[in-house]
Amino acid sequence: MINQKYKEMLNAKNIIRVLSEYATARGEEIGYENVFDYSLGNPSVPCADDYTRAVIDLHEHEDPMAIHGYSPSLGNTSVREAVAASLKKRFGLPYETKHIFMTSGAAGAIAHAVRAVTVPGDEVITFAPFFPEYNPYVNETGAILKVVPPRTEDFQINFTEFEKMMNEKVQAVLINSPNNPSGVVYSEETLERLSMYLETCEKKYGHEIFLISDEPYREIVFDGATVPYPAKYYKNTITCYSFSKSLSLPGERIGYVAVNPAAKDADIIALMCGQISRGIGHNCPSSTPQLAVSRVLDQTSDLSVYETNRNILYKELVDLGFTVVKPGGTFYIFPKALEEDSVAFCNKAKNYDLILVPADGFGAPGYFRMAYCIDTEKVERSLPALRKFVNTEYH
Amino acid sequence: MINQKYKEMLNAKNIIRVLSEYATARGEEIGYENVFDYSLGNPSVPCADDYTRAVIDLHEHEDPMAIHGYSPSLGNTSVREAVAASLKKRFGLPYETKHIFMTSGAAGAIAHAVRAVTVPGDEVITFAPFFPEYNPYVNETGAILKVVPPRTEDFQINFTEFEKMMNEKVQAVLINSPNNPSGVVYSEETLERLSMYLETCEKKYGHEIFLISDEPYREIVFDGATVPYPAKYYKNTITCYSFSKSLSLPGERIGYVAVNPAAKDADIIALMCGQISRGIGHNCPSSTPQLAVSRVLDQTSDLSVYETNRNILYKELVDLGFTVVKPGGTFYIFPKALEEDSVAFCNKAKNYDLILVPADGFGAPGYFRMAYCIDTEKVERSLPALRKFVNTEYH
Repeated sequence: MINQKYKEMLNAKNIIRVLSEYATARGEEIGYENVFDYSLGNPSVPCADDYTRAVIDLHEHEDPMAIHGYSPSLGNTSVREAVAASLKKRFGLPYETKHIFMTSGAAGAIAHAVRAVTVPGDEVITFAPFFPEYNPYVNETGAILKVVPPRTEDFQINFTEFEKMMNEKVQAVLINSPNNPSGVVYSEETLERLSMYLETCEKKYGHEIFLISDEPYREIVFDGATVPYPAKYYKNTITCYSFSKSLSLPGERIGYVAVNPAAKDADIIALMCGQISRGIGHNCPSSTPQLAVSRVLDQTSDLSVYETNRNILYKELVDLGFTVVKPGGTFYIFPKALEEDSVAFCNKAKNYDLILVPADGFGAPGYFRMAYCIDTEKVERSLPALRKFVNTEYH
Repeated sequence: MINQKYKEMLNAKNIIRVLSEYATARGEEIGYENVFDYSLGNPSVPCADDYTRAVIDLHEHEDPMAIHGYSPSLGNTSVREAVAASLKKRFGLPYETKHIFMTSGAAGAIAHAVRAVTVPGDEVITFAPFFPEYNPYVNETGAILKVVPPRTEDFQINFTEFEKMMNEKVQAVLINSPNNPSGVVYSEETLERLSMYLETCEKKYGHEIFLISDEPYREIVFDGATVPYPAKYYKNTITCYSFSKSLSLPGERIGYVAVNPAAKDADIIALMCGQISRGIGHNCPSSTPQLAVSRVLDQTSDLSVYETNRNILYKELVDLGFTVVKPGGTFYIFPKALEEDSVAFCNKAKNYDLILVPADGFGAPGYFRMAYCIDTEKVERSLPALRKFVNTEYH
């Protein structure tokens, strides 16, 4: 007999997917170039050429038995070694091979990290606005995701609400900076305060509280800024990374867990991930993307289009009177809708062929998300539609 | 605080891995060519050339955004369509795209299939000898794996014991033909009897009992025989496939779930797998192996070496007086040890640099497994060692 829980999940509509499908259908009517589709967070620039060259070289010159053979369950050792060395060099923490576990993207990394530091019934806290897939990522482990309301003035952490929700059942805190959907980068001040508070709670409750730091947008940062690296601020940090955005490889499902060498049990958490993988059917990511990314660890795609798009959209939204926090990175912007009901707002926008995502599912009702991982030319062409929409409906 | 269950799993030694590591260490002493390492089921022939050409062609000529972009959570639609068409042509069942869910190998396929048709506390029955990783694959879903003792005369299903263990909590039966570790192919007679019995039980207990058929060795079959396809015999069958063995791609983690179109809820089981994947961090297999295997679905590596090795080893084992069922496929042979304690037997074999795996973990104490996915030249060189071992220790 089929499992009714998963059957019922089929009835829950994913608003992003519904809007994306609408955009595709509308594109068939009027030409997709005329649909200003800001729905999906799919990178819009090609992967780095050196990644392509690495894959071709592996297939032309290496022994197929070596490149396609079983990789160890923690990932290919040479790849883990290269990741550790790269992180050590970039962030100054003494990562070694034993701290790295290769995963199928950030989703796989979070699936392992949450299971490693919780048991069913434990709580995991995250902060709105947040990526809605954190709900299944966490809740399907048996732990329970709790969401702290947003601090809307700057989308840093709302500590007042956070402290109210903290309790002894909280075993992990899940952050995402640069943030999907707000585009905000957590400041040093935020991370320092978070670290101090978590250390206090660890003492109070007598157990570790792990910080699970989801960082797929780490390399997409604007204005020449540097993203503060959470593990530098808090020792019990498990970093979850994906190459999906930095190298434009979302379909290849390649990322890693990096355990802060100073964390409690740092020497066994990656090993535990290897055990967890046996039960969830993971058994390490594909070998070719592992080997290929290990040759381009310190590269990215040409990500400059995202900053260009951010500049254009931010200026236009401010000019039109939107309340909006300037994104410091990612390829998202997260303005306040011009009416309380952001679902109604986004529905009206569809009449102007603007596809905007209402943010109820992100834990921030009244806001909406625009994913500007699209061509700059299209962003520019969308501005008249945006102006017309706002002026017709709200002025 | 870390999860103690996964920490404790680190203490359980995997006998195959321990023996493989011993073989590697011994190889460093005397040269690996002198260690007759029958421990690991890692394919010993390269992938089909057309797979390599497909990967190179995709990277040289296709748009990187298309090949590396997010694939839908059920897998790339064109790939699912090609898999359905190939299965329909080969086995005559009316598979459509909606019945196919792309997975990270057979491990991923089983992880999804078991979750789709059980809830925690349900029982899943399998038959000894069986692949020991079925324990975590099933038990970590919350369902409970029960193992029917072997029918040692031919390693077909022991129906007498099976019928004793059947009860209303059994929601799935997990088979593996051609079988790891016995090498035996389930006969038409076995599958017909299994089907009839399961249909009777479905009526008796008032719910479906799904047959989860794990088929990574389907293409490795000897003597020109055909492997009976379980889904043709029983409608509620979910086929779990991997390209790891047929195309020698174990590291690429690529396989699929194929739901028999005649199964109850056939139209939604693949969709449910897509929901399950959100919670276990799967989010579809890597896009490049998906696209590349879809171009070579009806090909295999040159698998002839396995039959050659089977012939040599089977003859030698029979000549030496072993009780052994002739394998019909795979790259395993599963003789009875020459003393009751097969662990002691395999330990003695190490003195002759023969690495054999005792079968206690496979649910068949007293037997041992030889994985003959090694060069024929090495198999031949191992024979004098095998003779010396047997004649010295047991004659």
